[in-house]
Amino acid sequence: MDKNVNSIHLLVILCSLSLSFGQPHPLDPLTPSEISAIYTIIKSSQLASAINSTSFGFHYVGLEEPDKQTFLSWHSNPTAHPILPRQAFVILRAGGQTYELYVDITHSCIASQRVRFGNGYPVLNMEEQNAVTLLPFNYTPFVESVKKRGVELSDVICTTFTVGWYGERDGGRLIKLQCFVAGETANLYMRPVEGITILADLEAMEIVEYADRFVVPVPAAGGTDFRASRQMPPYGPRGNPVVVAQPEGKGFTVYGNVVRWANWAFHVSFDARAGLVISHARVRNEDNNDYRSVLYKGFVSELFVPYMDPSEEWYFKTFFDNGEYGFGPLSSSLEPLTDCPPNAEYMDGYYANGDGSPVHIPNVFCIFERYAGDPSWRHTEILIPGKVLLQSCLEKSFFFTIEYKIRNVLQYNINNKESTYMKNGSVVANCAAQSMENLHLAVTAEIGIDMQITEAREEVSLVVRTVATSGNYDYVLDWEFKTSGSIKVWLCMFCGLNLTYSFIITVQAGLTGMMEVRGTDYSHANEIRGEQHGELVAANTIGVYHDHYISYHLDLDIAGTTNSFVKANLKTVRVNGGKTPRKSYWTTVKETATTEADARVNFHTAAPAELLFVNPGVKTKLGNTVGYRLISSSAAATSLLTDDDYPQIRAAYTKKQLWVTPYNKRDKWVTGLYADQSHGDDNLAAWSMRNRSIENTDIVLWYTIGIHHIPSQEDFPLMPMLSCGFELRPFNFFDRNPLIKTQPFIKGRWAAT
Amino acid sequence: MDKNVNSIHLLVILCSLSLSFGQPHPLDPLTPSEISAIYTIIKSSQLASAINSTSFGFHYVGLEEPDKQTFLSWHSNPTAHPILPRQAFVILRAGGQTYELYVDITHSCIASQRVRFGNGYPVLNMEEQNAVTLLPFNYTPFVESVKKRGVELSDVICTTFTVGWYGERDGGRLIKLQCFVAGETANLYMRPVEGITILADLEAMEIVEYADRFVVPVPAAGGTDFRASRQMPPYGPRGNPVVVAQPEGKGFTVYGNVVRWANWAFHVSFDARAGLVISHARVRNEDNNDYRSVLYKGFVSELFVPYMDPSEEWYFKTFFDNGEYGFGPLSSSLEPLTDCPPNAEYMDGYYANGDGSPVHIPNVFCIFERYAGDPSWRHTEILIPGKVLLQSCLEKSFFFTIEYKIRNVLQYNINNKESTYMKNGSVVANCAAQSMENLHLAVTAEIGIDMQITEAREEVSLVVRTVATSGNYDYVLDWEFKTSGSIKVWLCMFCGLNLTYSFIITVQAGLTGMMEVRGTDYSHANEIRGEQHGELVAANTIGVYHDHYISYHLDLDIAGTTNSFVKANLKTVRVNGGKTPRKSYWTTVKETATTEADARVNFHTAAPAELLFVNPGVKTKLGNTVGYRLISSSAAATSLLTDDDYPQIRAAYTKKQLWVTPYNKRDKWVTGLYADQSHGDDNLAAWSMRNRSIENTDIVLWYTIGIHHIPSQEDFPLMPMLSCGFELRPFNFFDRNPLIKTQPFIKGRWAAT
Repeated sequence: MDKNVNSIHLLVILCSLSLSFGQPHPLDPLTPSEISAIYTIIKSSQLASAINSTSFGFHYVGLEEPDKQTFLSWHSNPTAHPILPRQAFVILRAGGQTYELYVDITHSCIASQRVRFGNGYPVLNMEEQNAVTLLPFNYTPFVESVKKRGVELSDVICTTFTVGWYGERDGGRLIKLQCFVAGETANLYMRPVEGITILADLEAMEIVEYADRFVVPVPAAGGTDFRASRQMPPYGPRGNPVVVAQPEGKGFTVYGNVVRWANWAFHVSFDARAGLVISHARVRNEDNNDYRSVLYKGFVSELFVPYMDPSEEWYFKTFFDNGEYGFGPLSSSLEPLTDCPPNAEYMDGYYANGDGSPVHIPNVFCIFERYAGDPSWRHTEILIPGKVLLQSCLEKSFFFTIEYKIRNVLQYNINNKESTYMKNGSVVANCAAQSMENLHLAVTAEIGIDMQITEAREEVSLVVRTVATSGNYDYVLDWEFKTSGSIKVWLCMFCGLNLTYSFIITVQAGLTGMMEVRGTDYSHANEIRGEQHGELVAANTIGVYHDHYISYHLDLDIAGTTNSFVKANLKTVRVNGGKTPRKSYWTTVKETATTEADARVNFHTAAPAELLFVNPGVKTKLGNTVGYRLISSSAAATSLLTDDDYPQIRAAYTKKQLWVTPYNKRDKWVTGLYADQSHGDDNLAAWSMRNRSIENTDIVLWYTIGIHHIPSQEDFPLMPMLSCGFELRPFNFFDRNPLIKTQPFIKGRWAAT
Repeated sequence: MDKNVNSIHLLVILCSLSLSFGQPHPLDPLTPSEISAIYTIIKSSQLASAINSTSFGFHYVGLEEPDKQTFLSWHSNPTAHPILPRQAFVILRAGGQTYELYVDITHSCIASQRVRFGNGYPVLNMEEQNAVTLLPFNYTPFVESVKKRGVELSDVICTTFTVGWYGERDGGRLIKLQCFVAGETANLYMRPVEGITILADLEAMEIVEYADRFVVPVPAAGGTDFRASRQMPPYGPRGNPVVVAQPEGKGFTVYGNVVRWANWAFHVSFDARAGLVISHARVRNEDNNDYRSVLYKGFVSELFVPYMDPSEEWYFKTFFDNGEYGFGPLSSSLEPLTDCPPNAEYMDGYYANGDGSPVHIPNVFCIFERYAGDPSWRHTEILIPGKVLLQSCLEKSFFFTIEYKIRNVLQYNINNKESTYMKNGSVVANCAAQSMENLHLAVTAEIGIDMQITEAREEVSLVVRTVATSGNYDYVLDWEFKTSGSIKVWLCMFCGLNLTYSFIITVQAGLTGMMEVRGTDYSHANEIRGEQHGELVAANTIGVYHDHYISYHLDLDIAGTTNSFVKANLKTVRVNGGKTPRKSYWTTVKETATTEADARVNFHTAAPAELLFVNPGVKTKLGNTVGYRLISSSAAATSLLTDDDYPQIRAAYTKKQLWVTPYNKRDKWVTGLYADQSHGDDNLAAWSMRNRSIENTDIVLWYTIGIHHIPSQEDFPLMPMLSCGFELRPFNFFDRNPLIKTQPFIKGRWAAT
């Protein structure tokens, strides 16, 4: 917990078991009824009567999970345990203060509460954002500014931009607004109203700073809309549909929030800040023994997007999407058939809005079995024929070679033009007296259709998907479970819709300070002069350089909670002394990370290594330590900002792709619990500085996918999918490849016609 | 061309247009008739009469393509050009010499021929390999060795291992043999007969060295077979089938070897050394204008697999799969429904065997449309409602904000418990007199079903697949074409079947020199002592450390042949002078590679950069230089062998992932035209040392995927798919995202039931 937090525990007397919501799984997210109950409990509490309740703002309402050991103990024998009480963690703003509350829903009381002191503010809620974006329309200088630009006020939409922190003293909960022109297009991001800066106070709900520094024309709407209905011919290609169906039904079951498929079982839930949360993922051993744990919890902890334009209008654009906006409100309702294939099932999500009321997002997740036309494994063996019906007229002594070399013999016959060799064909060669040459012998053979052995299995995996839409970006976030025991985590990014909050560089010289440009318009690359901080992607439109850092919290519990992080470093060995014609080879030198400092890895500078997460106390039958390995993403960018730059201080963890910390129930958010206007004193890098022991204990892997984005014209007006992912792959977790005993589908039945 | 080659041009008088094979596309591979015709032309030539023709060995027979400019000129107007003569390039061994022949098939003559001098030998052919593997069975010491081990001779299978080059003088075309025991299992690689070394001369066709150094038991067959029919219960999970079909038919056409799909057109062919070759890949512009070229030629140039055990039995195992064995003979007939999905079409391949006769591989390629359940792009816009039927009882002046903020207003209503807000739902809120708070107004609204705009398209791509099986390895090689203009090249690797040529470490102390192990058996990890060069993956079985380097020849012709390689280096800029609260940002500094030295990139040590291949002479309408960018693979290993080690000298290019050379029709093979026993004097690294100009000219990108493989038990007895790939992605090639005008499928029609 934040060291600056002072605890103010109130004794709450009236706790009693008064509510009943059935008996949910202890990890299930809060139900709408529970969210409403939490609201009622708080409104009727001593706290509420102490504060003017009308000014309550809810900034986080989420399940307070049971402690891991409590849960595991319950799970091992649910009937032997009493019902675990349902608790919620709530962050409120009231009377200019931040309150942290633990609400016991089962007993209908506030279990504890405290006022929170320290840097940073909680996640913004949608209600205050919606309200603040309406302020300009009643603010005369803004109305004048819009009029001056010749834009219809009714076409203008404003939206919120977090202010970050740049060394200033705390000025309260501030927000910047930027406005766009929709009008003829749904692609408002392409039509910014530039030159205006608006700073508002979210709690006073008023504009506190306003400037209109320069006027530039708003770009035309033409060509920016992405809707099919707005396109004009000539149209692009239209593919023939590819249909996916499961005539024998789906292969997975969803019971409550627990998903079971093939050898996997895991729990799915929804959190207002993380979005999709995978819990308690376990995989069954080959021999159908008990499930063994792999991942206790996995979710997106933060999505950091810093822009690279230091000008007055842009410098602060360094977003923490989870910590400032929350993936809950940003989650999209998935569109059946386009967001997910026809064989998907859907789940809904609920979160509390700023007033504490439940918000329903239908179809917030989809779950489906993916078959992309690939094999999960295959092998063709040419040295051993398969079903061969062989009648030989050979010298007996060579029969054995012929039996295995039938393919060769047929090739010999080809030379004699007797038959055409076909690897998979059916061939009859006549027995004939032929010369023996290099032990190639003539044969009479009836060859069955399986002249070579080919064995393969279709790769079908299970995908759990959610989509977070943050302004102009859409992130498709997949968790893919494989029967091989792998978990693959995919991030498909669409910098949709002007990828970049297009920056109109049509500015008057000197006005912006940073933009030393001339002329009124850049409609062609030839006209560009000076530093532009981006690429010309359309007329008058610069796609500004930026990064995406998406950080995953991965609480691995490999066959139990007691794990270690092992780097198997690849080391070149020079061979001396003429024992071998070789001069070198590589081998591995295993190094167990003892403290957090050993586990900060930058893939760019680290020597090549296999990164293993093992359970030192659990061995395979063969005696190997069970583990998983991390196969990193090709999208492995690390931050290029200087260490002393404010956004970098706040997101200091982005200089390494990998961190490992000891498990701490409270350490969920790499940018800290209070990310808005945070100072970097409660982020992953700060925790890691404690340099705690991480050997043979419960540890958490933090992994960050990083992308430097240099826009191109193809990213206009939205960008095609950019896909990247990392894999958690078993490494001596199983005694052998668990796929070998996978039974093939009955292939012929469902072939295409 | 190799500088050591002496040209001996023979004047061939009797060239006349005598053969007719219809009129193939100039890039079509040799047909079986053409292969037969080549054989006839050579057999009846002056060369054949000069040499004893019975000793002819064919080592390469492939299309000699027309020069690029000749082809492009023909292609621009085929009817205006005479038929391009069909030519073949042939490499023969005869009388202890290597001959290079250019055979004019159209005119039925040898156009030129020469004897080749220099280091290295051509690709082995299957016939000589098959013959040489039979030698041991007639070689008394081997028969005795097998008897000594208590193994049935009829269960033994021998196979060929190239010898490499370790500084020795040329000893002719040598090969090593290693023998395995099949017997009860199809997984012979798991049962090596260790302790025996056999060296044979491929042309004398005799064993020239034989040693039986130590006896170890052959591992048991149990548990090694991978065939479903050989598995015992308990079985693994069996998924429900996922069916793929295309009720409106396939979306691509194959005319001869030219494939057309969506906005793509390209040519597919088969080569005995490269396997699958993609030629003349072009993509249409958004406005349906002419196709523009992207990739003139793409294929696997080499697959290098060095093992890391320097012992006598292992040091030489550093395979060049293309250069020593050829991907032609290694190509598998694809199994419908497992290797490729039900909606695939298949193509056959032909190559010439060692006797010059055509070999037919049915189903050597498959082509299919892939739909993996993902969107190609999507966006949800929450700031603008879609179809909203709005009847307002608002103050007129705020109508415009309500119109766009309808979502907010409904959220306000939620607070008043009047209705449940649903993002995608249909909601009616009653007009009611409500207090105005923060400009939130009450409305009467009938909201259509599209309360938010979500627009998405299914991602359907076109895949061309081939599978190369090299002993225990299967490589699934995909070329995936996307409507976005991207080409994604996938390598799915199955280190099938003992991934590693398992090495039985049950050896007597000191015998191997390198293996300082004790005891008779390692059946548990605890027993392992000393350097093992691998991991214990099953009882008595070490999976030996090794690498895979798969090198692609990518002759990019971005909108024409005149291209440049540009590194857009990302550079941190420190901000001084207090103009901005930021202290840093990054920008790009573009650097055009002028010579080959500028274009040798090691991603591990290079600064972050966007790697662009551009056509400096072609601009978008906006004035940007058209180009493609390379998105590298996460599998980016570079070799850890020392520079002076012989395998490294021969594969020196494996220290960098990326090279660029000027186009040279003859530079196809990164390990040189004669890779077997090569000395490294004719490989990519050697060519690059000439440091030729590569600016604004026809250039070739050479890209190597690299994988260090540390085996685990999951890799036994074969390994689940390991997938990696790189992407060639348009960068200002199009004026905007070509997907925007893609027409959506008629979704409802083909939904799952």
